[in-house]
Amino acid sequence: MVTAIALINVERGKVNAVAEALASLEGVSEVYSVSGSYDLVAIVRVATNDDLARLVTDDVGEVEGIAGTHTMLAFRAFSRHDLERMFALGA
Amino acid sequence: MVTAIALINVERGKVNAVAEALASLEGVSEVYSVSGSYDLVAIVRVATNDDLARLVTDDVGEVEGIAGTHTMLAFRAFSRHDLERMFALGA
Amino acid sequence: MVTAIALINVERGKVNAVAEALASLEGVSEVYSVSGSYDLVAIVRVATNDDLARLVTDDVGEVEGIAGTHTMLAFRAFSRHDLERMFALGA
Amino acid sequence: MVTAIALINVERGKVNAVAEALASLEGVSEVYSVSGSYDLVAIVRVATNDDLARLVTDDVGEVEGIAGTHTMLAFRAFSRHDLERMFALGA
Amino acid sequence: MVTAIALINVERGKVNAVAEALASLEGVSEVYSVSGSYDLVAIVRVATNDDLARLVTDDVGEVEGIAGTHTMLAFRAFSRHDLERMFALGA
Amino acid sequence: MVTAIALINVERGKVNAVAEALASLEGVSEVYSVSGSYDLVAIVRVATNDDLARLVTDDVGEVEGIAGTHTMLAFRAFSRHDLERMFALGA
Amino acid sequence: MVTAIALINVERGKVNAVAEALASLEGVSEVYSVSGSYDLVAIVRVATNDDLARLVTDDVGEVEGIAGTHTMLAFRAFSRHDLERMFALGA
Amino acid sequence: MVTAIALINVERGKVNAVAEALASLEGVSEVYSVSGSYDLVAIVRVATNDDLARLVTDDVGEVEGIAGTHTMLAFRAFSRHDLERMFALGA
Amino acid sequence: MVTAIALINVERGKVNAVAEALASLEGVSEVYSVSGSYDLVAIVRVATNDDLARLVTDDVGEVEGIAGTHTMLAFRAFSRHDLERMFALGA
Amino acid sequence: MVTAIALINVERGKVNAVAEALASLEGVSEVYSVSGSYDLVAIVRVATNDDLARLVTDDVGEVEGIAGTHTMLAFRAFSRHDLERMFALGA
Repeated sequence: MVTAIALINVERGKVNAVAEALASLEGVSEVYSVSGSYDLVAIVRVATNDDLARLVTDDVGEVEGIAGTHTMLAFRAFSRHDLERMFALGA
Repeated sequence: MVTAIALINVERGKVNAVAEALASLEGVSEVYSVSGSYDLVAIVRVATNDDLARLVTDDVGEVEGIAGTHTMLAFRAFSRHDLERMFALGA
Repeated sequence: MVTAIALINVERGKVNAVAEALASLEGVSEVYSVSGSYDLVAIVRVATNDDLARLVTDDVGEVEGIAGTHTMLAFRAFSRHDLERMFALGA
Repeated sequence: MVTAIALINVERGKVNAVAEALASLEGVSEVYSVSGSYDLVAIVRVATNDDLARLVTDDVGEVEGIAGTHTMLAFRAFSRHDLERMFALGA
Repeated sequence: MVTAIALINVERGKVNAVAEALASLEGVSEVYSVSGSYDLVAIVRVATNDDLARLVTDDVGEVEGIAGTHTMLAFRAFSRHDLERMFALGA
Repeated sequence: MVTAIALINVERGKVNAVAEALASLEGVSEVYSVSGSYDLVAIVRVATNDDLARLVTDDVGEVEGIAGTHTMLAFRAFSRHDLERMFALGA
Repeated sequence: MVTAIALINVERGKVNAVAEALASLEGVSEVYSVSGSYDLVAIVRVATNDDLARLVTDDVGEVEGIAGTHTMLAFRAFSRHDLERMFALGA
Repeated sequence: MVTAIALINVERGKVNAVAEALASLEGVSEVYSVSGSYDLVAIVRVATNDDLARLVTDDVGEVEGIAGTHTMLAFRAFSRHDLERMFALGA
Repeated sequence: MVTAIALINVERGKVNAVAEALASLEGVSEVYSVSGSYDLVAIVRVATNDDLARLVTDDVGEVEGIAGTHTMLAFRAFSRHDLERMFALGA
Repeated sequence: MVTAIALINVERGKVNAVAEALASLEGVSEVYSVSGSYDLVAIVRVATNDDLARLVTDDVGEVEGIAGTHTMLAFRAFSRHDLERMFALGA
């Protein structure tokens, strides 16, 4: 499983609409509206780097109202939870 | 459930040690080492704002090797997963 | 009581109008026009995190003339004043 | 009444100690530990600009563990609360 | 006397016009066009904090061509000149 | 007369000492301790560019406790005051 | 061989189009869409500084959809690969 | 093949030493010393995300003299060259 | 002779046109298109501070296509060349 | 001729010493101490890119007191002066 975290800024008044659009994309596991300098944090869990490229460059690029995106690839996960099983792709 | 996402920078050569120390703290659900300007992203899931305050100010403050922390409170979660059940506190 | 502090920038010439609009929102305790890099500082005091999410994402998002918002959740209050009583919600 | 808001960063592991030291200073009304890029937000309410200068330059300058301070003078307060009476100086 | 220093950026080609408009405002003592990251520096000398609030929020906000303003309140003046007498208000 | 404005940051707890040291330098007309991102603002009024170079590079460089300096050359002054006469050099 | 690396930001939804346009320019060896603060990284390998100037200032300047470019000249290459031979110009 | 580009700053006087240490690491294809805000750019070409994690977090973390690293994952490569064949892993 | 160096950003696709317009201004000695965060560097050599003010505020302000300018006054020149003679004003 | 402009910050109190050390290096044509965010601007004029690499990475790296360097390669020169002849290398 390839995991990435995206920090996202949206145009004024579009936080909920963009969050819902992102959460409906295949591969986007969770979206949080957050306090601070960013508006949204999206957690992406996909099978391959190609899926990640397609999701970030193509799918996210088509969501209206996004002002900026900063994506971070997760190198390793440290957790007491079995994240692979919990977010089993295709499940 | 109160969720927060922390963007963390660590001192050189301490990424794995800090990630493991953070992941062992009660309330820290997942820690990811990531590409980009930050070294680690920690997902915090606790029961109350007081637990969050205790975790961020007291527990994380005692982990050796952290150079900087930027914590974001999650206002709302947008997900097709039942995050409350998956990360059931006390489970 | 959940407290948050918002640092706000507004469009040119709209400081007073935005400050008054914000101060009239339920949950916004005080708004200050300030010197320095930000235009306004708003102190938010609400009952729950859900109220905070609704206020910041929905209500503030509808105020005309806001150019940017940086919201900080207060983890703990240190004060010789009994803030809970002074700003009793519903009072 | 002269009001100012100070955004403060502290050295690692000193959030509580600095917050308590600041809250005990005459003229500091409230101190909040906060999420985000700053560690503490202090609300200062004093009688004159000279009191503010003395507090910010002299008293705060002597608190151990402060890494940086950004002080904003409040030009005007917008509130449904009678802040002058609630935080009556000398009360 | 309350003194403040404002660092100002203006729209392209409007340095002289904005400088003259600012210098004609009551309470603005001097305006300098400067080298570096800012376009203008204005020195404000007024009688009270209320005058400062009125000048910065209301009067300056109405000057056409200002792109950004960063105002700093002077806590104390250190000078061999008798600035109070030299810039006597009302004189 | 050549005028320059310097924005200065000082080491913790040294605001007053550095301000007094700067104000005693020949050519430094006024020093203000200020709110915001900078600690001090110094107004320099000297006869020639060479005096300015000597003051900024040599004299200010020897003052203990300065952490950073950003100097702006004033191209033109806009004022209802006769600044040349008020700050007559040699007077 | 003169080598340069360009960090590029593009307008929303134009990552693929700009990447393809850049990759088709003579002298552009490789273009990568990337995670993080930049959208694209282009590796430029040309024969002379004049070719580099022509490519960066003239050719890249005509590609639609570029929002910003930060070009870095490579002083020296450290590699176990024979880059000169692999990317032989004219080959 | 997984490709990543790392922007690296090194301590004063250590550009050549760090560049040679990085270039000798398995998985680091090329290192360039560059003009501008960064000192070095390293191109990483490895077989899997795990190799990338190991290289960036473990191996690079042990190189003496690195002051900061900003790693970008390449989502897609656009090139007229057959990069997979040219930099064939294991070759 | 008064020397100043200006770091200039221009609108997309206008590097050459702005560079030529600037180089034709009296007092602008050299203009370079450059790699990195800025587009152009202009070296200004004039007789007096007044000439510098006129050039920077008035003449440069009228050149179409400039997005931003950061001007630095040269305090002193260190060179084995006799710059005064080489760039003799009026020559 | 290859031209580069370097923006340089130096440690406190070392502006003159670093400027003289830089000006004595072969290939450094002029060094200016400047107002603003940088301390020094150096103009480099050498015969080849290899000379530039040697100067910037090796020679400048050995000058004591430099805190940071940002080097920009000049792509093209626009000037009414015959810079090649004036700064003839070897002359």
